[in-house]
Order: sequence, then structure tokens, then C-alpha cells
Amino acid sequence: MTVYMIGAGPGDLDLITVKAIKILKKADVVLYDKLANEELLNYAPDTAERIYVGKKAGEHYKKQDEINEILIEQGKKYENVVRLKGGDPFIFGRGGEEELALLKEKIPVEFVPGINSAIGAATSIGLPLTHRAISTSLTLVTGHEDPQKTEKQVKWDYTADTLVIFMGVGLLKKNIEKILEFRSPDTPVCAIENATTPDEKIITGTLENITEKKIKPPALIIIGDVVNIYLESQKLKEQF
Amino acid sequence: MTVYMIGAGPGDLDLITVKAIKILKKADVVLYDKLANEELLNYAPDTAERIYVGKKAGEHYKKQDEINEILIEQGKKYENVVRLKGGDPFIFGRGGEEELALLKEKIPVEFVPGINSAIGAATSIGLPLTHRAISTSLTLVTGHEDPQKTEKQVKWDYTADTLVIFMGVGLLKKNIEKILEFRSPDTPVCAIENATTPDEKIITGTLENITEKKIKPPALIIIGDVVNIYLESQKLKEQF
Repeated sequence: MTVYMIGAGPGDLDLITVKAIKILKKADVVLYDKLANEELLNYAPDTAERIYVGKKAGEHYKKQDEINEILIEQGKKYENVVRLKGGDPFIFGRGGEEELALLKEKIPVEFVPGINSAIGAATSIGLPLTHRAISTSLTLVTGHEDPQKTEKQVKWDYTADTLVIFMGVGLLKKNIEKILEFRSPDTPVCAIENATTPDEKIITGTLENITEKKIKPPALIIIGDVVNIYLESQKLKEQF
Repeated sequence: MTVYMIGAGPGDLDLITVKAIKILKKADVVLYDKLANEELLNYAPDTAERIYVGKKAGEHYKKQDEINEILIEQGKKYENVVRLKGGDPFIFGRGGEEELALLKEKIPVEFVPGINSAIGAATSIGLPLTHRAISTSLTLVTGHEDPQKTEKQVKWDYTADTLVIFMGVGLLKKNIEKILEFRSPDTPVCAIENATTPDEKIITGTLENITEKKIKPPALIIIGDVVNIYLESQKLKEQF
């Protein structure tokens, strides 16, 4: 009875780690939510149970408590339980809550980091989230704060050079308005839809005009002068 | 003539991606600097040239310009050039500078993200860098700023809930002093030395006492209440 909490990476089937595959191959059961790439499940034995614990079309998300219950149940039942999460399990993945719930039931948990979706998205298109002299700090933040937080508790005064918003599309307009209180309207912005998959789409603009562009979820929003390095790389490529 | 800029991950040999291995296997030459795990080089064919471009004991770092020159030279000479960097090539990896230098010479560059060292280090020990209600934002920052920046340009007023310092040991005392202007002395801190390797060492404390503890580089410094989740998980494990 061990639960392996595994990061599935940003989407590209080959952006999973060797360690993740080794553990998936011995899984008795795999619990997963919305993955950028469901083909990853094929690494598990045919006989392994596959349990979807994510959002269903037209239905609500499973509540975290329910997911914890299912994990505990499976952890008690099977030797090798895999909990597969997109990106890294701990970066806006609520893995910490699942960890504590399992440990309270004396179920061992092990962790396999995954390529974080923001870093995976940016690096694979040649956009450096840090760049000497331009950005020596990077803040990752969720675009969907706990709805129980008051307006005042939700802060956007991040001073890091580069800012990346996860799950940033739904509240983009509202959040950009707040960010504009702290950053110049001409700050470059890059949105990456469906990163590292065949449906990837890259949209660039500025804080002032990005909300006028059509951005569809799932997308990562990258804000800061490092976006100019990406634009420069694209210009250089045109001269090839 | 393509240069593949590849993230080698945080150290554990199995925390490399399938994509990285596929490309390493067809490398004509591999340029690498100080890697947490040099065994990764074994994925390259025996015939592939291996060029170390990092720090040598007792010598200075190769200057970035020199590294760019070597990359350009190899990119012109060989079909498949691998540039292997620890963690992710773009997170404090200076990959952006190499990218632009190569593109200016019309040498194509492709990118394979790697598990970022901070996320890899924290996740693998069960320390969630974000945790609902405790941390909804994460800032990654380098402990070694460009020495050309003035004291004033180097800021420590990061408002994100969790703060992670890369290459944080050398200037730890000086940096913690600055951070104490913005965070409470009892803020929990976790240092992870040699993450995901057999020499891994985990040291915990607070902003007030962490500099009294012996921390040896390379280490990541994690600051924020999420460290308490790690401490809680350790306590729960003791009851197993």
C-alpha cells in the first residue's frame, strides 16, 4: 500500500520522466484527472484499474474530500496506487492535501516530480522565463483563487520580473485590470494554449491589449520583458 | 545543424524525460556544465564527443561568450548538438543567451524542458510549494544577482506566499537579512542540499535561525508556511 503521486508533465507524451514510467508500469490502479495527454495511461498494465477523479462534462468537479476518500480506499486495497496529475503534483495541483489525508490514514506516499506546465510550455517554445539582466525572478500564481478569499486578500502586486498565471483565462480581464495597477500597459504578454500538444497556440500582446485577443483555456499567461526574447527569437528565425 | 537545449532535471538519473533521452541517443556532441548526475552522458553514443563547458576546480567559470562561441562552432560542425543543462535550461540557466547567439548565426535551436531543480527537490520530499489556503503563489529567485546590479536594484520584497532561492548558500546571510525586512522571523525555512541524489540533506529552521545551521552548496532555500506541511508530513510518518 503505497500511493505514488506522479507528475504527468505539460502534455507532450515524451515529456514524462523515466521514473514516472517505471512506476506506472507496476501500477495496480491509476487515479487521474484531466490530463493534457491521456495516452500516458497506456504505460499502466492492461489489468490496472483506471479511475477518473476529475471534472466531467456538465458536472461539477469532484470535491477534494471525495478524491481524498477514493485515494485512501484504493491505498488500502492495492499495493501500488498511482495518482497521476498534469504538470507537477504540487504546483497548483492540490497534492499536499492528498498527501496529508493519506498519511493521516498511515498510507505511505511517494512523490515523482513532473515538468511544471508553465516551465514546460515556455521552455519548449524558446521563451526563457528568466534571462540575465531582464528577469532574475519568476512568480507562478493561480488565476483562480479560493473563492472564499476576499477581494483584498487576492493580491496582484507581485514584484518578480516575470509573472506566470496558471488557469488564467476565466478571470483574465479582472486579473489584468489588477495587474495594471502595478505594471506598465506596454508590458509584453504571451499566452500559450494547449502547450506542447498538437493544438498548441501562441498569442502575444501587451497588458493593454491581451484581453482583446481570443484566448481559449487551457492557457498559461506569461507577463514580463522575457516575452521580448521570444519575439526576438521569432524574428531571427524568419531570417533563416 | 541543430542545437538541442535539454534540461537534465534535478539530479536523480530517472528524473530525465523520455524526450531528452531520445535526443541524447542521436547526439554527435554533448556540451554540458556541472550536472547533478554525469551518468546522463551515458545515454549519448560512445562515439559522441563530450565537451565540458562549466566550472573547473580552481578555475573561473567559462564566460558566457566563450560558451556561446563553442556552441556556434559545434552547431556548424555537427548535425545533432546537445546542450545539456541541470534542471530546466531556462530557469537561471542562461539558456536564453545561448538561444539568441545561435539564432543570430542561423543555427536552429530546439528545446526540451527539464524538471526544474526547485520543484523537483521540493516535490520529491513531499513539500508542496503551493498549498490551498496557505500558498497560492510561488516566487523563484536567484541568490546570486548580476554583480553589476546596485544594492538597490536587488530586491527582496517579493510578496508571493512561497519564496525559493536558487544558488542561495553563498549570500544566504546577506539575503536573509534583507528578506527579514519583509517577512516575520518565525517564517519556516527548509534547505535541501544535493536534492534527489544519495547525498540529499534536508535542514529546517526559521528565517531567524537558518543562517546558524550548516548548509552546504548546492542547496535550495524554501521560505514560507508550506514548509509546515512538510514538517506535518514528517510527524505523521513517525506515527506509522
